[in-house]
Amino acid sequence: MDPLDSQLRFVLEADRLKSVLRRSTLNDGSRRENSAEHSWHLALMALVLGEHAPPGTDLAKVSAMVVLHDLVEIDAGDLYVYADEAAQRRQAVAERAAAGRLFGLLPPEQGAAFRALWDEFEQRITPEARFARALDRLQPLIANYEAGGKTWQANGITADQVLERARLVEDGSPELGQYARNLVSDAVRRGILLPAPA
Amino acid sequence: MDPLDSQLRFVLEADRLKSVLRRSTLNDGSRRENSAEHSWHLALMALVLGEHAPPGTDLAKVSAMVVLHDLVEIDAGDLYVYADEAAQRRQAVAERAAAGRLFGLLPPEQGAAFRALWDEFEQRITPEARFARALDRLQPLIANYEAGGKTWQANGITADQVLERARLVEDGSPELGQYARNLVSDAVRRGILLPAPA
Repeated sequence: MDPLDSQLRFVLEADRLKSVLRRSTLNDGSRRENSAEHSWHLALMALVLGEHAPPGTDLAKVSAMVVLHDLVEIDAGDLYVYADEAAQRRQAVAERAAAGRLFGLLPPEQGAAFRALWDEFEQRITPEARFARALDRLQPLIANYEAGGKTWQANGITADQVLERARLVEDGSPELGQYARNLVSDAVRRGILLPAPA
Repeated sequence: MDPLDSQLRFVLEADRLKSVLRRSTLNDGSRRENSAEHSWHLALMALVLGEHAPPGTDLAKVSAMVVLHDLVEIDAGDLYVYADEAAQRRQAVAERAAAGRLFGLLPPEQGAAFRALWDEFEQRITPEARFARALDRLQPLIANYEAGGKTWQANGITADQVLERARLVEDGSPELGQYARNLVSDAVRRGILLPAPA
């Protein structure tokens, strides 16, 4: 197949990410967010908050990672961040299969490069992956806070669970991690997030 | 204000782009597309189709442009690409005011840099801006074609009008321009787009 034809087939297939609904809502609580607009918000955050990444972080790579990171949900769906470990293991298997199929639509060299970026994001070792993952954790935390914590309340989530998930924010950016912890404390103070059980 | 606080205020405000509806639909025709998910699709296209930009094009800059380009619609709304010239002039004024307000939320130096990127996109002189604008024109053309041309039919749009708008695709990338022209011919052949009036 002509490379451009393969690339456009991938671009067409990607449209389906707009129909994958996440558990979290828009900041105004009006509806659930989809994974495509979530990915755009992360790309914007990579531009805006890049100075809070460790010095030397390649921000163009961070941007590419967040644009690509959720494409696997076209096949695997979105899993709630508080799902149990068995569900997380099943999701990881489904996402790897999805990565194989989706990036396999592209010309081989390009498909391999995109797959490597996705693997890097998942492995969370490089500063780029750690910053990208930090943004991916921070964005729904902000959305939940802004929307009055409805998703937390509906799922019986407590502050210790949110803080546990927010450790990835700290891991990618100490400054953003501090901000995330403050947001959690404030959510408890405002009564929109249950404190940790005694 | 602390720079991080300004930046997060901008990130919060940006969430509203998810509620700005465009005239075009998802590829499956199920609903209208919003400007945030559209912007994500363009960022993905910049990654996938970058090799079809003129040699030397700075693709990280293209990506930043497409991520930012529609934020002004938070205040100004989306204008249909086939709107008349008077409406386009009013829109341009509203968008400049919106750019002033929105980028003005950021720390001054960063706000000026983002505004410069948005101005560059609008002016369509540099290869980066021309390629970004090409993607912005190509994506809804593909969506309309895939969705069976319903938006064209509902608005009485004919092939000559689509080709006129598709000139921006050619201008940013001859290869993508050729693809766009083929798509228009094929849409006429399939009977989902009216031919030019005799």
